[in-house]
This record gives sequence, C-alpha cells and structure tokens, in this order.
Amino acid sequence: MSTPIAVDEDRLAGYVEELGRLGAHPDGGLHRFVYDRAWQTARDTLVGWMRDVGLETRVDAVGNVFGRLSGRDDGVVLTGSHVDTVPSGGRYDGALGVVGGLAALAALRAQGMPHRTLEVVALCEEESSRFPANFFGTRAILGLVAPDEPERLVDADGVTLADAMREAGLDPTRIVDAERHDLTAFVELHVEQGRVLFDAGLELGLVEVIPAVTWETITVRGRQDHAGATPMDLRKDAFQAAAQMARDLTVLVEREGRPAVATTGRWTVEPGLPSIVPGLARFSLDLRHPDGQVRDRLLEQVHARCEAAAREGGLELTIVRDKDEEPATMDAGLLDVLRDAAETCGATWRRMPSGAGHDSQLMATRVPTAMLFVPSVEGRSHTPEELTSSEDCGRGASVLATALHTLAY
Amino acid sequence: MSTPIAVDEDRLAGYVEELGRLGAHPDGGLHRFVYDRAWQTARDTLVGWMRDVGLETRVDAVGNVFGRLSGRDDGVVLTGSHVDTVPSGGRYDGALGVVGGLAALAALRAQGMPHRTLEVVALCEEESSRFPANFFGTRAILGLVAPDEPERLVDADGVTLADAMREAGLDPTRIVDAERHDLTAFVELHVEQGRVLFDAGLELGLVEVIPAVTWETITVRGRQDHAGATPMDLRKDAFQAAAQMARDLTVLVEREGRPAVATTGRWTVEPGLPSIVPGLARFSLDLRHPDGQVRDRLLEQVHARCEAAAREGGLELTIVRDKDEEPATMDAGLLDVLRDAAETCGATWRRMPSGAGHDSQLMATRVPTAMLFVPSVEGRSHTPEELTSSEDCGRGASVLATALHTLAY
Repeated sequence: MSTPIAVDEDRLAGYVEELGRLGAHPDGGLHRFVYDRAWQTARDTLVGWMRDVGLETRVDAVGNVFGRLSGRDDGVVLTGSHVDTVPSGGRYDGALGVVGGLAALAALRAQGMPHRTLEVVALCEEESSRFPANFFGTRAILGLVAPDEPERLVDADGVTLADAMREAGLDPTRIVDAERHDLTAFVELHVEQGRVLFDAGLELGLVEVIPAVTWETITVRGRQDHAGATPMDLRKDAFQAAAQMARDLTVLVEREGRPAVATTGRWTVEPGLPSIVPGLARFSLDLRHPDGQVRDRLLEQVHARCEAAAREGGLELTIVRDKDEEPATMDAGLLDVLRDAAETCGATWRRMPSGAGHDSQLMATRVPTAMLFVPSVEGRSHTPEELTSSEDCGRGASVLATALHTLAY
Repeated sequence: MSTPIAVDEDRLAGYVEELGRLGAHPDGGLHRFVYDRAWQTARDTLVGWMRDVGLETRVDAVGNVFGRLSGRDDGVVLTGSHVDTVPSGGRYDGALGVVGGLAALAALRAQGMPHRTLEVVALCEEESSRFPANFFGTRAILGLVAPDEPERLVDADGVTLADAMREAGLDPTRIVDAERHDLTAFVELHVEQGRVLFDAGLELGLVEVIPAVTWETITVRGRQDHAGATPMDLRKDAFQAAAQMARDLTVLVEREGRPAVATTGRWTVEPGLPSIVPGLARFSLDLRHPDGQVRDRLLEQVHARCEAAAREGGLELTIVRDKDEEPATMDAGLLDVLRDAAETCGATWRRMPSGAGHDSQLMATRVPTAMLFVPSVEGRSHTPEELTSSEDCGRGASVLATALHTLAY
C-alpha cells in the first residue's frame, strides 16, 4: 500500500486565489493568454513560489516553467498542467494542476530525496485562446512543434507567435531546445469541467480515455439581398441555411446520446445588418467522442446533412477541418497507482472518460500518462463561475502527492 | 395631358457613375455613411452639380442638400431621396432619386420659371447604417427629431451623433432650424430593390403603399459551459435555442406567403469560441407587411413561438422593439399625375406596394407623397451588384420631370 502524503490545503487555496488575480478582467473572468502581460506575471510568480518551497526552477525555450526535486536515479516523473486560460475563464482550469502539483512536491520534499526526480510544470499554452497553437508547451516538450509555426501563426491582432515569444523574453529560433527524452511518467491533476462527479457525489475521477476532438469551420454562401424587397421564396439566406444545419447536426448528436457532444459556438454572419438578407454565414463545429470510429460516423452524417441542406437551397458549402485529434488512452499502471493513492487517502472515486481535451492526451502519445479529476461545482467550466471547493482541491493534491510518492520513492 | 420632359440620359449616367465612386470600398461596395468623409465629399459634389445646372443651393441644419428652382407662387414641390448607403451598398439605392431629381430640375429649368417652386433634396440619413437614426434628414424637415438624439445616439465607434455633426461642420443645437412647413408635395424616384418589375418586364412601378416595418432585438440567455465536458442533455445552449426560434419564425412567415417577409440578419453569439457552449445569443428580427393587422398577427405568432422555445429549454428570453412603423399610403392624386406622366412618356407601368422602407413613408405622414420605381436587375439591392440600366434611369427621371412639370407649371 502507498504512504498517505497530505498537502497544505490552506497554502494550496492561497495559490489558487493569488493566481486567480493574474489576468482578472472587469467581466469577472480571467483573460490570461500565452506570452501576454498576465501570463508573464504568472510565470514569474510561479518561479517564485517554486523557489520558496525549495525546488530548483527552470523556464524552457517556449516558456514552460519547471520546479524540480532531484532524485538519485535517471528518469523524471512529471506532474502539472497549463497556466493559460480561455477568455472569461475560471480560476481552476489548468491552474489547479499547476499549483496542486507544486503543493504536492512541497509536501514530498519533507520525505527526503526521491529515487526518481520529480518535476512540476506550468505548461505555456493549452487552450489556443491567443494563437491556433493548442498544447504548444506540451508539443515543444515532445518535439512536435512545426518549424514554421512561430512565423506562421498570428493572434487576433496580427502578432506572430515569434514576436509574442520575443515580447516575453524568449527566442523562437530555440524552440527545439525544449524537447525532452527523460520523462517516465506524466500525471495531471485537473478539474472535471463537467458534472459527472458533482452529480454522483464522488470525490475523484480516474480518467481512462480522452475523447477525439474534431474542429471544423463550416461556411455557407448564399445571396445578400434587401430584407424588404426580396420575397421569402426567392431568397438564398446563408444564415437560415446554416442555422438549419446547426440544428440538424445538434439533434443528430443528441439522438446518438452520451458521451457524444457537438457544439456550434462561434458564428459570423455577413453583412450582419437587420435589413439585409445574409450572404454569408460561418460557424465552428466542435465534435467529440471517445471512440474514433463513432466520431468518424457522426462526422459523415453531419457532412451529409449539411451537403443536402446546401444543395436543396442552392447555396455554396465549404467545410474545413481545423483540428483532428485521436482518442488518447491513459496508462493502466498509472491508473492503478492513482486508485491505490485514492484508497490510501480514503477518497471516493470512479473511472471515467474525460469530456474535455487536455495536455495529457498528447503527452500520452509518448509518455505513460494518467489524469486525476476533482469535482466541478454544477459542472461549470470555461466561465468565471468555475468552482471547486478548497477541500476537493486539497484532497486531489494529496492523492496526487501520494501517487507521486509511490512512483518516485 | 401632360407635356413630356426628357432629361439628359448621358448626364444622368455620369452623375450615377461619379457619385458611385464616393465611398467606394475595396470590397466593391459603397460605404458612405452620414457625416463621414465620403458623405461630406458627396454633399460638396452635389452642391457643385446643382450650381452647374443653375439651381440655388442650400445645406440645412442637419446636412440635407437642396437645389431650388424658384417659382412665382407659395409652396414647394420637393423631389429627391437619400445619399447615404448601407455597408457594401450599391450605386442606385437613394442616389438615383437624388441625381434623377437633379437631372429633372435641370431639364425643367429650360421651361422657364414655374408657378410652384421646385426643389431637389439629398436627404442626409435614411439607412441608419451609422447611427440608429433612420430617416434623420426627413425627420428633421418634419420636426420629428427628439431633442436628446444628438447626444444619445452613438455609432459603432462610440462617436455621438452630435460630434459627428460637428465633424461635418454642422451645429447639433440648431437641428430645429431644418423644419419646414412650405412643402405641398414630395415625389421620390427610387430603384425597386426587388424583382417584380424585372420579372414582369415593366418599366415603371407606381408605389401605392409602403409596408409596416418592425424591428426587434431578440436575446436568449442560457448557460455558458464547456463544450467537451457538458453532455447534450444538460446544456442550456443559447445559440441553439435562438437558431430554432429563427428557423421557426422564418417557416411561419414563409407559410404566410407574399408579401410577408422576415429577416434575421444580425447575430451576436457569446463568448463565441468553438469549445464553449454559448451563454448568450442575440439576433435582429426585421418583419414587414403592407397590412398593419397582418403584421400584428404575425408578430404575435412569432413571440408565442419564441416564448414556447425559451420556456421548453429553461432559457431566458428578452424581446425589445427597436422600430415600429405603420404602413404609409401614397397620395392618390399624385399617383394619377405619375400615371399620366408615364403614359405621356410611353412607359409601361404597374401599381405595386414597396418592399423596402423609404423616406417617403415618413414624408407621407405630413405631405402628399408618391414614389416612382424603376427596375432593379435581378432584383438585387443592398449589394455592390445593384444595377439599373442607364435607359431605365433616364426613363424614370424623364417621367419624374414630366410629373413635376404638371405639378409646378
């Protein structure tokens, strides 16, 4: 059996609160985007906290922040999560895994030098809320950043990723230096962001699989016309056709049932005036299923419906695949270690799929990886109302510390 | 019978072409908004053209431009239209009525001094593409501008109407000076903006009625959630509910049949990210029918459907009435004068309702008013592809001149 390691719950709550002020926006949410001012402050703050608890610190070539507790043997057991947020994001998504890992390593330091080196990481970009560069920090560690990304990717203001890196004191020509080959395990603590644990009254979730996420941009082109002078039967209203597509695909995925989800969250309607029949409508599709085959079948059905609707209305349809992930299976051995740690700490738990995507899904392609979920109140996430109780945060970090103890001591 | 008065068709085509360069945008359309640079240039250009053909010119307190051919007796017969455009607008909407009226007065000047004074006007704001101030020029002439409008109304950049007026050399405290009580008739030449004349192969439309236009802003508030972690059956997706409302009301109005029209042209979806279930969706409704009672019944049905959809999904619904016009009936005597003028000029014609709203609908509440339509190729309008042949423009302006001759000589 594993040895229970308890983190300092109050200190952890303090970390969450203080980090939750960096990038705070008048709308009540966090706007902390990779390489911006708030992100830089968070980076520096984390380096300070890591030093305070006696860890060696290092910021790598892309801005991932590491705190290290060196061990006797080769290989590194890594924990952590990301420090960037979605726009109007909450204080727990990503952040809890970083400061929870920090609290865990602080508690483990009292156990003396480990066999395996332990590190906690604040990964520099997961959400792609500034650049279309999901999992940038993780991809840099795994050597998966394409050479042209720094100059090719731009944010909403036209700033290149390379310029943003330079702004944050980093050299975009040195991204390859971030690559590592010494990781033997990655364990990520994260809030569930859904309501499975909350509704079931359970304390922990052991993630078995992270679903395949597909992003597409669907553009419908019709004919811009005068809203008063164009009879309904003569219109080619791009928005109405797109709205029907969005409704159809949603009903389709609703009928498929859990765990299939589809979201049409971003909309552009042009010219966007009350008195003009829209000539263009463009929307995002986010479709997820933990089974890649089911995902592919759903996408086929969605495309068939959109094409039929466009054909029927005489409209032009373009579908562009923006993201195409595969489901990621978590490491069975690590899941057993997490289960033992949960039992040791007396926490209730269940195995479950993740709803959201995480750094772990990419890390899992190269390194044995597992994830530990704590409950999200009312399942709320990607919103300022995101909340996990201090007790649940502390419990999650203690179970993480207990598991890391098993892995490294 | 009336005396046929022919305008100079080439000169008119030249006016259309030159005015069509003022506010031209790289997208191929016109962006000429009240009080902006392009609008100011258009104002100065029109003053120049009016002087060139021997008219007295005057710019009133809100920027309406008048060209005058003084007569012996009291009372003024006014013709003209607006000079502002919708975003990505065409070269004929509004502009043709202004330069067509100018060409008509140029032709009439050769007939000597009229009994009644004739004036042509370029009205300063009809489309409300910059400020929510529809028919601003016409309202100023009729004394219908609310005292707080200049400071209350702002454009998309936060500029007040008052500041925009000052920018264009006008004094917002003097708006009342624009009011007139000497108008005895208003005749507006305009492109149809629909395909009734084009499809029927007719040369002129005599407008009998301008439909009631209602604008509403419909806001649906749901719950912002994570797109991956929130099962479909637990969502309160504001966009999906709003899209269903928009589809339902469109189908309802389609079933009502011509001439009922409804358009949902402007959309805001928040937070507007692929991976977040929208918490808010807001859209515009533009609903029109020449019969106010039918309009009211349709609105009731639309509201009932929206309310049912919101109730069913547990979402919050707000409907705000932004515009509430009554149908405007054109003056029967003026329509007879226009019919005689059409016959005199050998033009084919029909009586018809307008599809779009026009300055004439407001003018008609105080002054005997009539409208004359010329065909729009393929019925296209509010788009850079808007087109009326030079021949049709010239014919319309000649019939206008012939009718003005009957009214003023």
